Amino acid sequence: MNTTLVRALYRNTEEHIEKSVKISGWIRTLRASNAFGFIEVNDGSFFKNVQVVFDNKITNFKDVSKLPISSSISVVGKLVPTPDAKQPFEIQAEEITIEGMSSSDYPLQKKRHTFEYLRTIAHLRPRSNAFSAVFRVRSVAAYAIHKFFQDQSFVYVHTPIITGSDCEGAGEMFKLTTMDLNNIPKTEEGSIDFSEDFFGKEANLTVSGQLNGESYALAFRNIYTFGPTFRAENSNTARHAAEFWMIEPEMAFANLEDDMELAEQMLKYVIKYVMDECPEEIDFFNQFIDKGLKERLDHILNSDFGKVTYTEAVELLKNSGKVFDYPVEWGIDLQTEHERYLTEEIFKKPVFVTNYPKEIKAFYMRLNEDGKTVAAMDCLVPGIGEIIGGSQREERLSMLEARLEELGLNKEDYWWYLELRKYGETVHSGFGLGFERLIMYITGMSNIRDVIPFPRTTGQADF
Amino acid sequence: MNTTLVRALYRNTEEHIEKSVKISGWIRTLRASNAFGFIEVNDGSFFKNVQVVFDNKITNFKDVSKLPISSSISVVGKLVPTPDAKQPFEIQAEEITIEGMSSSDYPLQKKRHTFEYLRTIAHLRPRSNAFSAVFRVRSVAAYAIHKFFQDQSFVYVHTPIITGSDCEGAGEMFKLTTMDLNNIPKTEEGSIDFSEDFFGKEANLTVSGQLNGESYALAFRNIYTFGPTFRAENSNTARHAAEFWMIEPEMAFANLEDDMELAEQMLKYVIKYVMDECPEEIDFFNQFIDKGLKERLDHILNSDFGKVTYTEAVELLKNSGKVFDYPVEWGIDLQTEHERYLTEEIFKKPVFVTNYPKEIKAFYMRLNEDGKTVAAMDCLVPGIGEIIGGSQREERLSMLEARLEELGLNKEDYWWYLELRKYGETVHSGFGLGFERLIMYITGMSNIRDVIPFPRTTGQADF
Repeated sequence: MNTTLVRALYRNTEEHIEKSVKISGWIRTLRASNAFGFIEVNDGSFFKNVQVVFDNKITNFKDVSKLPISSSISVVGKLVPTPDAKQPFEIQAEEITIEGMSSSDYPLQKKRHTFEYLRTIAHLRPRSNAFSAVFRVRSVAAYAIHKFFQDQSFVYVHTPIITGSDCEGAGEMFKLTTMDLNNIPKTEEGSIDFSEDFFGKEANLTVSGQLNGESYALAFRNIYTFGPTFRAENSNTARHAAEFWMIEPEMAFANLEDDMELAEQMLKYVIKYVMDECPEEIDFFNQFIDKGLKERLDHILNSDFGKVTYTEAVELLKNSGKVFDYPVEWGIDLQTEHERYLTEEIFKKPVFVTNYPKEIKAFYMRLNEDGKTVAAMDCLVPGIGEIIGGSQREERLSMLEARLEELGLNKEDYWWYLELRKYGETVHSGFGLGFERLIMYITGMSNIRDVIPFPRTTGQADF
Repeated sequence: MNTTLVRALYRNTEEHIEKSVKISGWIRTLRASNAFGFIEVNDGSFFKNVQVVFDNKITNFKDVSKLPISSSISVVGKLVPTPDAKQPFEIQAEEITIEGMSSSDYPLQKKRHTFEYLRTIAHLRPRSNAFSAVFRVRSVAAYAIHKFFQDQSFVYVHTPIITGSDCEGAGEMFKLTTMDLNNIPKTEEGSIDFSEDFFGKEANLTVSGQLNGESYALAFRNIYTFGPTFRAENSNTARHAAEFWMIEPEMAFANLEDDMELAEQMLKYVIKYVMDECPEEIDFFNQFIDKGLKERLDHILNSDFGKVTYTEAVELLKNSGKVFDYPVEWGIDLQTEHERYLTEEIFKKPVFVTNYPKEIKAFYMRLNEDGKTVAAMDCLVPGIGEIIGGSQREERLSMLEARLEELGLNKEDYWWYLELRKYGETVHSGFGLGFERLIMYITGMSNIRDVIPFPRTTGQADF
């Protein structure tokens, strides 16, 4: 007899009710009296358990009634409705097979554990309610992103993880080598002889796929990346990880307005998709992790995002009467406190801040007519602050070259990036979304370590 | 006026025909006489160009008629059917706007270039027909893989790229560090002081997500990974890259038979999806890259994959009368020549070879009753040999521990992997598919460097 997924029992109950079914899964709870027993079985396919009822007519009643939590079993029995109970149905067991007996020291007993403790058992924590919910949502959200872009014929590009350049300029990088660290090869002059290394030169882990992505946007028009990126920054916070996933769409023939429209549509699409596909998980988060979650997500779906220039935003903050830890002046990089005040108190909805001073933004952003600001946009959302950063790219070769020079950057390092401006340049724009930030936002989880299966942070690369 | 994608003109012609449309794109070819001109415009959204006809009623006729290849333009005009021409329709231009003038030294002129040369301009090669086709197929195939698994509620898991262990045992690894290579910190005993490194210990780039994937399969039942993996192997061949993407599904409550069924269904699904979604690209490959491609792909779709044990396969090869470069004896690892002979000459279709000698397979594969072979499977396909490798995993704690000991591996390094066998173990199975191999198979491209946007191989990490 084929096993049925518990997901199918819940989602297509009609098909299975009053029929014999077989399920396999792990015991979440078990209570047994002398005559009867109740097992909550979770098979991983669905957030909720299915209840199995067994009695002493079962030949192996004695064995089963003593099984430790997390033992794996297969059950054959009839699925019957339970109109008076909390759960909609239960399985009246006819046969229970023990697949794998768990040890009685299984760490995830019924009592609540702290998230800190659960990080030390990252190989087992997806079996808990909270992490089962987090990592299913992570999977469904990842798919929603692919679906959103593919339905509009965006081309998914795998930009390189290993990079021979450090000119992405977005943060500190991990070095990569196959050289013997006990015996680094040296040139005659005494410097490191990278010609002996695997790639024949210095190599690092990427901090962004954007520059490579641009070259593909100028071939395919609309592209997106979705892959891991890295920061070797020693910041031990709840929002920073050394390894995280990024989504970076890039569109040719698209300006900053188009960019903001895409960002707004994408966020709404992914949130709606997850709410539709994972209602049990979202209910759980709303009840146990973040009481205002559903309201906040609904509010995003039903808001037209606001728009404000950086210069206007600075005025609004200065005139707000609010005293910030970090005083607001034109020219500063907005801090999380400022961002959250803008989106939570002033706009009371997501808001795009545009046209930042060029000094606080990256070299590749398009210089505005005023000569002082660039066509950048940050998307701020209530409860979190910045979730997306993007820009219209500087497509004018001479302007881009001037900007590189101004910043003391070496033109030769950017030869191919500059050539994109030489051979049929177009207005083009894109943005970056940190996937973990999005998952934190959708789930209400407050530590990035709890939305990455096996997180890598300063001093931490276990499992 | 909003621009329309060329893809929409081809796929939904009815909607646009005889109407005014606006397109933006790059000039692929341009011919102009004194009175008329023809431009083939490609906007990246579709493999084929759209033909634009313009005449000297166009105000900027003179500018346009001299535009170099790859200049970007926007065109407003009427889409009219051309029943007597090669192309189904053309745009009669009313207005042409020059977006970005290309330089006349644009390297992708009409003449054919070698793939070797095109690798040196990896930032421009997706604008050529062949690479436009390859990288759209790569994108669509990636999506097909996600869709295949998500439609069956498999959970997508981002297993870590950075690993603190080197116990995956699948190949040579890249070391990762933030230490100053000119001044490696040393302990008092003179060995490298990894406590000074970012993670406080040695760190490498992953060669496989499987062990981590197993821990999630034992929570979610059915999971898959799809991410980059790395090999620091000095093999300068057409089939090896230092950085490539892998798909690794893992199923709890599933044996080797289930594993093979999933592999066969997945391959067929992805091939069919790409053939349905990218008919223009597949036609191109079939005509210019690999004449037998479509026939071979159709044949796979219509075959039930064969099954043969390793022991039987060795007998078949020995009795075939064929002389191999590498002689066949029970116990050898099958070489590509053997694999291809099996699938191409003996079975004439894809075939699974099962139950390999334990000596040539990984420690985590389940030992068969004979004590000599393990429950492994390799999927061999005509034209390429092995495309998938998988196994039923050793779920019995004592057997797994014995195997680690036999191989001189340190049990402590595998503490959490062993714990998966302690807390509710189940029969479980999975496999790995190298994504680039699959793309080579679907496109007929023969060098892995030509199916990766920016390939990383020995001595090569440009762009």
